[in-house]
Amino acid sequence: MDVEIHHHTTNADLRPPLGGRVPGQPVMAHLLAPWLRGRERSLLRRLVNRVARRDVTSLAGGLPAVDLFPRDAYGEKLRELLADPRSVQYGPPSGDLKEQIALLMRRRGVPCRPEEILITAGAQQALQVAVAALVARGECVALERFVYTGVREALAPHSPRLLTLPSSLDDGLDVEALERCLLAGERPRLVYVIPDAHNPLGVSLTWEKRERLVVLARDYDFAILEDDPYGLLCCDGEFERPLAALDSERVIHVGTFSKILAPALRVGWMRLPAPLVDRFAAVKEAGDLECSRLTMLAVGRLLADLDFDRHLELLRSTYRRRRDAMLEELEDQLPDGCAFSEPAGGMFVWVELPPDTDGERLLERALAEHGVAFVPSAAFADVHDLDAPANAVRLSFSTLEPESLRVAVAKFAACLREWRREQTTGGRGR
Amino acid sequence: MDVEIHHHTTNADLRPPLGGRVPGQPVMAHLLAPWLRGRERSLLRRLVNRVARRDVTSLAGGLPAVDLFPRDAYGEKLRELLADPRSVQYGPPSGDLKEQIALLMRRRGVPCRPEEILITAGAQQALQVAVAALVARGECVALERFVYTGVREALAPHSPRLLTLPSSLDDGLDVEALERCLLAGERPRLVYVIPDAHNPLGVSLTWEKRERLVVLARDYDFAILEDDPYGLLCCDGEFERPLAALDSERVIHVGTFSKILAPALRVGWMRLPAPLVDRFAAVKEAGDLECSRLTMLAVGRLLADLDFDRHLELLRSTYRRRRDAMLEELEDQLPDGCAFSEPAGGMFVWVELPPDTDGERLLERALAEHGVAFVPSAAFADVHDLDAPANAVRLSFSTLEPESLRVAVAKFAACLREWRREQTTGGRGR
Repeated sequence: MDVEIHHHTTNADLRPPLGGRVPGQPVMAHLLAPWLRGRERSLLRRLVNRVARRDVTSLAGGLPAVDLFPRDAYGEKLRELLADPRSVQYGPPSGDLKEQIALLMRRRGVPCRPEEILITAGAQQALQVAVAALVARGECVALERFVYTGVREALAPHSPRLLTLPSSLDDGLDVEALERCLLAGERPRLVYVIPDAHNPLGVSLTWEKRERLVVLARDYDFAILEDDPYGLLCCDGEFERPLAALDSERVIHVGTFSKILAPALRVGWMRLPAPLVDRFAAVKEAGDLECSRLTMLAVGRLLADLDFDRHLELLRSTYRRRRDAMLEELEDQLPDGCAFSEPAGGMFVWVELPPDTDGERLLERALAEHGVAFVPSAAFADVHDLDAPANAVRLSFSTLEPESLRVAVAKFAACLREWRREQTTGGRGR
Repeated sequence: MDVEIHHHTTNADLRPPLGGRVPGQPVMAHLLAPWLRGRERSLLRRLVNRVARRDVTSLAGGLPAVDLFPRDAYGEKLRELLADPRSVQYGPPSGDLKEQIALLMRRRGVPCRPEEILITAGAQQALQVAVAALVARGECVALERFVYTGVREALAPHSPRLLTLPSSLDDGLDVEALERCLLAGERPRLVYVIPDAHNPLGVSLTWEKRERLVVLARDYDFAILEDDPYGLLCCDGEFERPLAALDSERVIHVGTFSKILAPALRVGWMRLPAPLVDRFAAVKEAGDLECSRLTMLAVGRLLADLDFDRHLELLRSTYRRRRDAMLEELEDQLPDGCAFSEPAGGMFVWVELPPDTDGERLLERALAEHGVAFVPSAAFADVHDLDAPANAVRLSFSTLEPESLRVAVAKFAACLREWRREQTTGGRGR
């Protein structure tokens, strides 16, 4: 059984009759909407706070290498723009920026016009808007077992039925497993996919898988939500063209400047059929009215003036060196029974540990005894997916220099070897 | 009959069986969630684009006087911060900014600690988060007949039952009408209120109404969403203390820097009981992960260094002069049968026209023949509220100098007088 169904709806969804404050509960807790009541902040968010310690080397973060970003140029554009009071006013999205984004899309092989672009507060808002626009309460959504947590957060208020699909460490989403589900009668409204340098797996879809996925979308009438934060960060040449290059009608493509210009811009986008942009814009506006006019104008000008190829090459070559260091060290240091992905770009490597190794417990020990942090696989699984394997972790190579990465990976591997030894000799490991 | 019930759920909510593309419909339109299918962009948003013409003097916008904002100081803080790459990284909300916001809240008479603050992308996101956290699908929400359109947009995905309440041009929300509904058995989960310088009515709640509203919230177990964008912009002394000063457990107070430092910051906040901040933060994160770290740091520093009292006094005295000019001109120029609110601050005056005067049709003529724009009352009513009076308009005094305002108001009044004359003489008016 490689495909599982999880339904978010629980008894908690049935709101009790009006009651009033429950003794021992925080004030107003009884007024929370049912879907929110049982929820806690994600394991990932809770970890982020725990690993932010000075004595810990972190392979946990999903953070880009901000020291490579063109901060001086951005500051210069802001200074120029602030001379005009209209730059800080409310205002519609910048046409210049939409032009620049359409150029970026075409660079990736996706035919694109500015009127097909909706500018959003990072890629996260694009996901939230797409999900709100397309997923009615309780409907079926297909996604991989281990996947970017933000899409789960965006889905949660809609209490979807989740169709959980397996992935391969070689080429990502198991499209054949999806097809088997469809043949068996499953009818997802939406399939979520990260085609390039997957978070957390690091893998990319082959061209054949892309083609097959689009054919399935047409045959079984679903939309594809293509989340592509790392598509411009290939370290080995270029990634395949996005799914949006194959079908501009059923694929909603999501991009962001967070990984190439800076997270603090809070500017991302989605490309979708032009007749739907206004509908989706209404959902975006309900969330936050609009993005910062100042920032949108500044990014538009920055993209027009920056030597973008040179900037991208700096990011790519830096990540290439870091990735290679991590992969070499993993190859040298990991004990038998492990496997790991070999990403062509992006920021992450996925490591499968021997079957009886619990990633969360390994993290506790790594933090306490080796001063190294990473993210256990459980952080990327649905909380109701009790069968999700616990023996995997995500390592990030994006923020550390090769030498520091080697040291951190060596510590991680030493911790794992120690743990394994104790397991086999009946030692300290639980 | 002064209270009406509207239910957003229509036949369109029942999603048809999986069908595929409908001929003549845009691509993917059949995949939209039912709540979004029948929706169009709000009348207000559509108007904003129409009135942005060079030959039109606009009294329509909800725009602050951005030329008064401290742009140089903001630019200086950005420049300082951009020296450190961490300023553009992902990162949690700034503690400094939360401290500054808690100070602002205490200045308004609300006891407040930084851990009760959630920073949001403007006030709009605070409304969206509060509504998503508190309103389950189909539940009852009470709000005034004419009210800020953004809260309707935030409510739409939850298809609430709307309890529509009347307002007075003297002192806003009719709290007695709410009480009659409660006595009659209505049980709203949430009551939305703009206590000071209401958008669009311009009115403020008396202290007695504030007290009564909070007592009702306790007696009938509902939460109050207190939307307060203009609370620091009183032109005549100070507004009464916010509802949050009366009850810190049931009142969610929403504030923003958009009207006092700049819309393009996209920084607002909500004050709520500390134990709920994490729950609400999860909803915020699902929407856009986080606000810009760079902007949050800059606003925190700006507030620490700026002579804030002086800045506020500049805004207040400017708005006072503009408001007075508008009110004087309305008093002098409006024909008999009109009434208008006399705001103590904020940006808006509400004008009730004679009973048979349609605000939307008046706008068409004012645009075409007098080069002046305003917002008709229909823009602020629920689209399903067919009984909402059409004979009112919102005028904004925030962006024009007194002399220009007088000219624009005179044009508006001339247009109205002309219209009235034709109505009574059987002339051109339809």
